[in-house]
Amino acid sequence: MKRILIQLDTDARPSVFDRVVAVDAGCEQLFSYGGITPENVVPLIHGAIFTRGPQDLKSTAIFVGGSQSDAGEAVLKKITESFFGPFRVSVMLDANGSNTTAAAAVQSVTHHLELNGAEAVVLGGTGPVGFRAAQLLALSGATVRVASRVLERAETACSKLRGLVEGAKVIPAEASDDGLAATLDGAQVLISAGAAGVRFLTADEWRSLDTLKVLVDLNAVPPAGLEGVEPTDKGIERDGVICYGAIGVGGFKMKIHKAAIERLFAANDQIFNTVTIHEIASELS
Amino acid sequence: MKRILIQLDTDARPSVFDRVVAVDAGCEQLFSYGGITPENVVPLIHGAIFTRGPQDLKSTAIFVGGSQSDAGEAVLKKITESFFGPFRVSVMLDANGSNTTAAAAVQSVTHHLELNGAEAVVLGGTGPVGFRAAQLLALSGATVRVASRVLERAETACSKLRGLVEGAKVIPAEASDDGLAATLDGAQVLISAGAAGVRFLTADEWRSLDTLKVLVDLNAVPPAGLEGVEPTDKGIERDGVICYGAIGVGGFKMKIHKAAIERLFAANDQIFNTVTIHEIASELS
Amino acid sequence: MKRILIQLDTDARPSVFDRVVAVDAGCEQLFSYGGITPENVVPLIHGAIFTRGPQDLKSTAIFVGGSQSDAGEAVLKKITESFFGPFRVSVMLDANGSNTTAAAAVQSVTHHLELNGAEAVVLGGTGPVGFRAAQLLALSGATVRVASRVLERAETACSKLRGLVEGAKVIPAEASDDGLAATLDGAQVLISAGAAGVRFLTADEWRSLDTLKVLVDLNAVPPAGLEGVEPTDKGIERDGVICYGAIGVGGFKMKIHKAAIERLFAANDQIFNTVTIHEIASELS
Repeated sequence: MKRILIQLDTDARPSVFDRVVAVDAGCEQLFSYGGITPENVVPLIHGAIFTRGPQDLKSTAIFVGGSQSDAGEAVLKKITESFFGPFRVSVMLDANGSNTTAAAAVQSVTHHLELNGAEAVVLGGTGPVGFRAAQLLALSGATVRVASRVLERAETACSKLRGLVEGAKVIPAEASDDGLAATLDGAQVLISAGAAGVRFLTADEWRSLDTLKVLVDLNAVPPAGLEGVEPTDKGIERDGVICYGAIGVGGFKMKIHKAAIERLFAANDQIFNTVTIHEIASELS
Repeated sequence: MKRILIQLDTDARPSVFDRVVAVDAGCEQLFSYGGITPENVVPLIHGAIFTRGPQDLKSTAIFVGGSQSDAGEAVLKKITESFFGPFRVSVMLDANGSNTTAAAAVQSVTHHLELNGAEAVVLGGTGPVGFRAAQLLALSGATVRVASRVLERAETACSKLRGLVEGAKVIPAEASDDGLAATLDGAQVLISAGAAGVRFLTADEWRSLDTLKVLVDLNAVPPAGLEGVEPTDKGIERDGVICYGAIGVGGFKMKIHKAAIERLFAANDQIFNTVTIHEIASELS
Repeated sequence: MKRILIQLDTDARPSVFDRVVAVDAGCEQLFSYGGITPENVVPLIHGAIFTRGPQDLKSTAIFVGGSQSDAGEAVLKKITESFFGPFRVSVMLDANGSNTTAAAAVQSVTHHLELNGAEAVVLGGTGPVGFRAAQLLALSGATVRVASRVLERAETACSKLRGLVEGAKVIPAEASDDGLAATLDGAQVLISAGAAGVRFLTADEWRSLDTLKVLVDLNAVPPAGLEGVEPTDKGIERDGVICYGAIGVGGFKMKIHKAAIERLFAANDQIFNTVTIHEIASELS
């Protein structure tokens, strides 16, 4: 029974990146679809669950991708609603790589610091990667300041996080110049996950934080979100702070992505989203 | 020489169902296209017939699918018109599964009854599956009452059937409440192939037919077209009548579909449509 | 590491012809995209170059095709601009088969005649295949009369050729009835690469050219561009002239196409366009 991965992409053209990873993760047949929405996905799901017998359904799996993480979440929701009884296949969501990137970033931090009880700040915490990193930090028991340049958006994100993580210690915070000093005060962990082109801190600013132990800058394209961090930094110490850059985290992210694709085929009832993908990351590291 | 199946689907996105079956039937390479019409299909056919040499063309084949059987027939016609001399490949048409489903239904009946000379009724006989079931019953020598809720449509279907099957004994009949008793009188075989959600007969109605020996209800989604028939029924007896439901017929349908795909690669000049797919079903059962 | 070929087609539906050749050339995974433009190609290229590590990038390659050679050139340009440093993969351009056809035609002539110093005429020399044939003839040292029914277009083509081939001896010429005799005077090589349905010369006309040694008619569909040449002609002599037809050249063209696809995977920094594809043709013949 050949392993079939059905790639459902919310962009017009299915991601080459996700296709290459699927091939390298051992998928023998890849069915790639672009332009997927909750409105057109159901017949494709029926085709996936009604063809092979229930005992063979673990050899068929679905990957949901695309550049818009909200669109991916909506498609995932519709997919899981289309399943019933034994008629289901395993599904992984990694729109824009946000789950694997967040898992790689947070897991990298745990090599250097116990997250339970730690003080963490996520700059760009309302974006796809930042939000998921905040979720995983909160789940690990850290107190997380979720920072956005618009405080209202940070408040909305925190409400959502409290719905996702029981007992989440999350605090809306300002990433704008005025509020930034207060946001960073006492932080031990700093993750920068802003949009490309946004510089949050100068090198002097983050070096002046006495409590800071580990930072991750997920910006691959200059300028860095945190000045002085190189994309290739991978656990190196700069002025007493352990630093990771986007490429430094990228190798582990890719390893997580491939492992998750492989594990999709272990059973037909798995849903790999933020938390489950982080669990895979934990086992790998 | 790898086996290439070119899937030409008249729907916007090529069917996942048909792709999975193709893989499970041993196709090594699958080229899947959606949105296929008679207007855009010719360059694809030229690409299929002018690439490999004539002696290798049997390793390339075409599958025409999609949810609209008329659209599939129109594409098949255009494809066969594009062939000439040795420049041709084998083609299978199974839009919406109508050929394989009709073949599985009719062939299931023959396990229990000699069709030559039998009295058969097809409810929903003007739809894609019902029409093809009526065609195969007529070809087997049965007298077929082709029933529709609109008598005119039944008459049109019968005219078309007479063109397809020489000496066809086909009778337009009414599936509406008023005419149903007359339609069913004396029937030995009853195939229900209406649209989802249409209940043709209550359990009491079909149980009261003394002559009835075998029935097939092709409706997989409740309510059943014939009340009291379960989708999983597979040749079981209910009140003296052998019953088949949609899932009971489905396993055989899938077997026919796979076998037909495999046989496409036996030669480069085969056209698998209703009759030829039924011949494959006969050999398999 | 599986060989992945990414087929980027400027037509709405990716060419079946190019897909079959890719499979027969040993590509294990084929990612096929239609509707590709310079505007939408960049994310696909990033997916190709940022997934596998630099040492594995030679196992990923790109084929640019489609019926419009200008559109293909524009996509190729955008692709090469997206590469940087070691982040690149090999690319082949063969829109409408124009590079492989031109290479096969010109290389066929060299079996019979030294091109350096020869007098050549290309009828339809401003079209995709004719222009590339003229380029290769000029590169081989022939004097090339580039003939078009509109002299201005021939002049534009010659200007472009002088930019592509250093020291090119190219002469704009008329393919219309009035100028044709002068265009052909003294020609030893004649390549006919006009649009389908265009007859350039009657049999008497080309037979009357005393200097003519080799001709190639690339028109596969009647009427022939050069009357009396059969599509299947493959180096046969007709009235003292060695003749090739479109099908006679086609087998070699296909061999070049497959060899080029195979060689794409030898390294990650190759660009196969007109000249490089002709070099492959030279090695094969």
